Amino acid sequence: MARDPKYDILFTPVRVGPKVAKNRFYQVPHCTGAGVRNPGSQAGHRGIKAMGGWAVLCTEACSIDPQSDCTPTELSSLWDERDVENLRFMTDVVHKHGALAGVEMWHSGHGTPNLDTRAVPYAVHQWGPTSWKGLQAYSREADEDDIKALVGLYVEGAKRARDAGFDIVYVYGSHRSLFVQFLMPRANKRTDRYGGAFENRARLWIEALAEVKRAVGEGCAIAARFSVDQLLGPAGIEVHEDGLRFIEYAEMEGVVDLWDINITKYSEWIEDAGTSRFYKANHQAPWVREVKKVAKMPVVCVGRLTSPDDMLEVIRSGQADFIGAARPSIADPYLPKKIEEGRFEDIRECIGCNVCISRWERGARIVCTQNATANEEYRRGWHPEKFDQTTDPCSVLVVGGGPAGLECARVLGLRGYDVHLVEAEKELGGHLRSVMRYPGLAEWGRVVTYRQIQLGKLKNVEVHLGRGELTADDVLAYGADKVVLATGARWASDGYSAAGWGAIPGADAGLPNMATPEQVIAGKEIGARVVVLDADGYFTGIGMAEFLADQGKDVTLLTNYDVVGPMHEYTAEKGLLESMMLEKGIRQITKHWVERIETGNQTKVIAYNLYRDGYRREGGPVKGKPPRRVSGATVALDCDSVVLVTARVANRALWDALKARKAEWAREGVRGIYQAGDGYAPRMIADAIFDAHRIAREFESPDPQRPRPPRRELIRWPLEDRVLSWE
Amino acid sequence: MARDPKYDILFTPVRVGPKVAKNRFYQVPHCTGAGVRNPGSQAGHRGIKAMGGWAVLCTEACSIDPQSDCTPTELSSLWDERDVENLRFMTDVVHKHGALAGVEMWHSGHGTPNLDTRAVPYAVHQWGPTSWKGLQAYSREADEDDIKALVGLYVEGAKRARDAGFDIVYVYGSHRSLFVQFLMPRANKRTDRYGGAFENRARLWIEALAEVKRAVGEGCAIAARFSVDQLLGPAGIEVHEDGLRFIEYAEMEGVVDLWDINITKYSEWIEDAGTSRFYKANHQAPWVREVKKVAKMPVVCVGRLTSPDDMLEVIRSGQADFIGAARPSIADPYLPKKIEEGRFEDIRECIGCNVCISRWERGARIVCTQNATANEEYRRGWHPEKFDQTTDPCSVLVVGGGPAGLECARVLGLRGYDVHLVEAEKELGGHLRSVMRYPGLAEWGRVVTYRQIQLGKLKNVEVHLGRGELTADDVLAYGADKVVLATGARWASDGYSAAGWGAIPGADAGLPNMATPEQVIAGKEIGARVVVLDADGYFTGIGMAEFLADQGKDVTLLTNYDVVGPMHEYTAEKGLLESMMLEKGIRQITKHWVERIETGNQTKVIAYNLYRDGYRREGGPVKGKPPRRVSGATVALDCDSVVLVTARVANRALWDALKARKAEWAREGVRGIYQAGDGYAPRMIADAIFDAHRIAREFESPDPQRPRPPRRELIRWPLEDRVLSWE
Repeated sequence: MARDPKYDILFTPVRVGPKVAKNRFYQVPHCTGAGVRNPGSQAGHRGIKAMGGWAVLCTEACSIDPQSDCTPTELSSLWDERDVENLRFMTDVVHKHGALAGVEMWHSGHGTPNLDTRAVPYAVHQWGPTSWKGLQAYSREADEDDIKALVGLYVEGAKRARDAGFDIVYVYGSHRSLFVQFLMPRANKRTDRYGGAFENRARLWIEALAEVKRAVGEGCAIAARFSVDQLLGPAGIEVHEDGLRFIEYAEMEGVVDLWDINITKYSEWIEDAGTSRFYKANHQAPWVREVKKVAKMPVVCVGRLTSPDDMLEVIRSGQADFIGAARPSIADPYLPKKIEEGRFEDIRECIGCNVCISRWERGARIVCTQNATANEEYRRGWHPEKFDQTTDPCSVLVVGGGPAGLECARVLGLRGYDVHLVEAEKELGGHLRSVMRYPGLAEWGRVVTYRQIQLGKLKNVEVHLGRGELTADDVLAYGADKVVLATGARWASDGYSAAGWGAIPGADAGLPNMATPEQVIAGKEIGARVVVLDADGYFTGIGMAEFLADQGKDVTLLTNYDVVGPMHEYTAEKGLLESMMLEKGIRQITKHWVERIETGNQTKVIAYNLYRDGYRREGGPVKGKPPRRVSGATVALDCDSVVLVTARVANRALWDALKARKAEWAREGVRGIYQAGDGYAPRMIADAIFDAHRIAREFESPDPQRPRPPRRELIRWPLEDRVLSWE
Repeated sequence: MARDPKYDILFTPVRVGPKVAKNRFYQVPHCTGAGVRNPGSQAGHRGIKAMGGWAVLCTEACSIDPQSDCTPTELSSLWDERDVENLRFMTDVVHKHGALAGVEMWHSGHGTPNLDTRAVPYAVHQWGPTSWKGLQAYSREADEDDIKALVGLYVEGAKRARDAGFDIVYVYGSHRSLFVQFLMPRANKRTDRYGGAFENRARLWIEALAEVKRAVGEGCAIAARFSVDQLLGPAGIEVHEDGLRFIEYAEMEGVVDLWDINITKYSEWIEDAGTSRFYKANHQAPWVREVKKVAKMPVVCVGRLTSPDDMLEVIRSGQADFIGAARPSIADPYLPKKIEEGRFEDIRECIGCNVCISRWERGARIVCTQNATANEEYRRGWHPEKFDQTTDPCSVLVVGGGPAGLECARVLGLRGYDVHLVEAEKELGGHLRSVMRYPGLAEWGRVVTYRQIQLGKLKNVEVHLGRGELTADDVLAYGADKVVLATGARWASDGYSAAGWGAIPGADAGLPNMATPEQVIAGKEIGARVVVLDADGYFTGIGMAEFLADQGKDVTLLTNYDVVGPMHEYTAEKGLLESMMLEKGIRQITKHWVERIETGNQTKVIAYNLYRDGYRREGGPVKGKPPRRVSGATVALDCDSVVLVTARVANRALWDALKARKAEWAREGVRGIYQAGDGYAPRMIADAIFDAHRIAREFESPDPQRPRPPRRELIRWPLEDRVLSWE
């Protein structure tokens, strides 16, 4: 199907300084965990999007000096020739596919602990310590000599960027980077030429932009990424004050060729990279529109845009000139091409879960719930839209239609297998059908709908619903050559957790006063006073608490962790979730776990402080006795209902039954049975889908259960480097 | 001075399987952050210790399969030939200096989230999720096929270890690794041959040891690292139960050549790597002695041993056969050589602060408070005991005798400069003189005493005490060719912090009801009810709280962080500090900061919840107003005294005055003035000392203030790897 010509405007070229972007699809700078230490992943991830039709591909933040070292998170850098060489792999691939390459030159000001380099950053003021995830970050108040040196670092960085082949060079001033610290009146109390009045606070950024433009502006476009509003009112940058003022000033000075616009709170970028739980697509529009009213240079906006009609509206309404994207481009590197070809139903839409961000924040490579191939382009050689046809086109039974079963069936189908997907229930989706009913998580349902639609287009995949749970006999008699079990997991009904080294005495979701999350969503009656026990630490405990608070219940959330839902520290949702719990009156009890639950006239949760052991050892080993006093410190919570968010348990009964009958497999014509997803080991949705995808990609391996070793970006240490100077 | 022959026993060779260790100094496996991705650092750090006289040098934990991936922390691995090649650099250097190289083969069981590899680990049971620093770790219950595969992984790993040149191959079963999970009755509920009775729980470890010995035992010694007691009484492994039982069983089977013994709690290794705050040197002795009573094979013990007499006692008393060390070997790589040569006073003793561990736990390279050259051996070419003589032997005035000034004077002295160290006070030590009086931190004083003794031995260094604060005139008139200012920092007296974007209204340490930490230690009177305000997040807030609680005060610690002292999560002290606070009745208020302090009839601290902003945005930008409701949620704390642990402020008045007179420097014969330590930017002690050391090493640079770029272990990406498979 060809696309409606009304979308043509998305494919008109746009001039950016001395360059021309071939269309309006612009991958803004975003982290992947590749940096310069994993140049293959960097080139692979950006390159695949260039193939998929994006006109501009940018790196993540790219440090211009060891002063800005974000270890252990992996960013790019432009410190010397090694960086230039490694980044050139990315720009070569991007250019080969007709796109432009951008690099986001970054200096942290205060804000990085420089754990690797041990350098002290110049900043607007001596600052801190700020505890950056537990480690202290320091800075030095830059004097005028330091400021001159700073501008020099940008110029040196820009020259290296040009040499590495970049077309667009950012002088990044967004989120919490150096220039923001100078621009914010709340942060900048300087009394010299770089503090005070607006022009003074803007001076450093303008100087850096001007010098960079002078140095490389003939060949490269100069971009500024700018958080035009910090949502703090007069305490921060406001779009109607210094926001627009800076735009106009910089354009008057002629130092910027492109604006990459967002909003942010200083320390929390959820206002930019908003999750679907809190923000809808294009949620930054009201601020970006104001910029477009004054800016003469092209404007990029972002906001998790995945719908072609929303994009059309952005361009037509004059909200922006480019459809910027980070997460939508990760979820679907071929988004522009699919729009270009009118294949709207094939778009794999971002669900806004921020699991990508969570991995980078934790110091690892990004992953994607929707796109199992994200960041695997280089090391596993996976192309999101191309699949090797199988050399062994046999029949495969996939048992279970949750995320893993759906993905496995999809990929096996694309690879030419004859696939039967059999689901016990009447609907596809597995545990996601329950999860998407948690407050704010409806968009997560895209995981199911995308795959459902794709399966519908594959003639060699049959989907059978409502078949009830298959037995080992059913499976062996099915007639399939190979079988994949994707039987999923369930929440423990006995309070089992790692925190408690087992079940909770007295816990039983079969009783009327206790419930698992599935039971809560399915409508089991819950009393007025609820205690949610969360040893999981992700979205379920908080989800249950909010779900029940919204029904007017009195909710206490008890967890073994230091904070409720520690995983959300990494999805950038922690702050807003804390605010939500405060606003909805959800009480928190942290650092406790449950000794027992009493059911009687009154349900009681008896919990102990994890740190009740005395802090001093008393003497040496005595058989049968720990060498420290244990205090009896416990709390007793009276309640009507207890919700058990303790651990998920793999549904392995079918596998165990089949494994016990392995001798019969050959006789029944079954050549192999494998496990995918939570049935193998309960995992985050992204990992369960990844694993199912991997098994389907590697289905001809001697044992698809065991991953093929991916290509490593660990390089053999060259002999000339094997020298210790003091020897 | 030659050593007393009574210490000779420390230098007798010890047979270990087919190998001989030349003496009893044994660097046990410990992390450095080098792994296999930084082979130069790995070889440099271990190699320097081989030069310093250690008989055995081991790697950190070394993963035998992608199932055990500790990203973002950096460990070694033995997955393929690339690892073998990179690790061979270390073994070559170690062998060159006559020492043995050991490798600690490691499988995590459950416990690693495998953020990079995305593999699912085999474990004793499906387990979890455990939240490993916020991210969820999963595992699969290993069936008998999986267990067979597991043993195979150890054998493959051992063969690669042998090929890489290792002499000692560990089959690691300590702390919280795979074999512990099988051995612990509390963790192992299996009903097959690998669960239940002791022999069953021990079976997997014994099988792995036996197979590894069969595979490489002819050329390599097989070591087992074992936590013989988990300090949990019958709930864990006890030395008098399964601890000694396992030792005897393994020796009966003849599968172990060496025991590397420690104690640990399952999830907290502070009981092994105890800080001086909690544990004295050789604190594990009562447990190790029990092992030595039954073990026939040589036993390594650890326990922050730095005193030659303590070591002598360990060997003579039959407590152990080897003096094991991790931290003491980091603080002084030449510890054995200094003992061998009778230079006891030159030993740079570990202070037990665990800053080394903190960096690795955070995903970075280790550093050391005492030894600025630790982990800089390769990349900066620093040898801890060798110093290039200056080519420009001028006179240098060092202003300030705190840690940075002492270190700078020491290194400048060793490099042949004519150094005058001038200290305002009558004693050396700077802020450490106050810090070492915090509860448990007395050993930190070694930072001062070591340097004081070393300066005393340098004829070209003069130390002048009690000179009062120098003025710019004093400095310019001093007659020195160059000057280093190490003027330190002080605690803010106005409640300044990054958390509050400035000072706290009403805060003034000049008032009788408020105090800085220095004032508290100096004896300022503190009332009965105290609120400690901690925006620092490290040892000072907790130190103040404990110091005052020990005096019987009623103490509340209020912090902007999620937990009190988040930095201690990384020094491994968090658990014991939480227990201490619980035991001493120190109340915690987290996630709050201070709006104002009221001084009147009643001192009041008014604090707000950091998350009091509504979680929903309301509309778009409105000038002068944040787009969300702000709740008034505050708490008011009545108290008698407030202790301000908010931020340290650099003492920069002297620098500012000198800088303003830069034109006069040349006239006065001053060729350069530089800043070292906290006066340049307040930092952790390790970083302040490092920086002072660096400036002294690079003193002939055009600008010693700017670090010379260290050698990078970022390798140029080879052309043959620049291939994307799908192109």
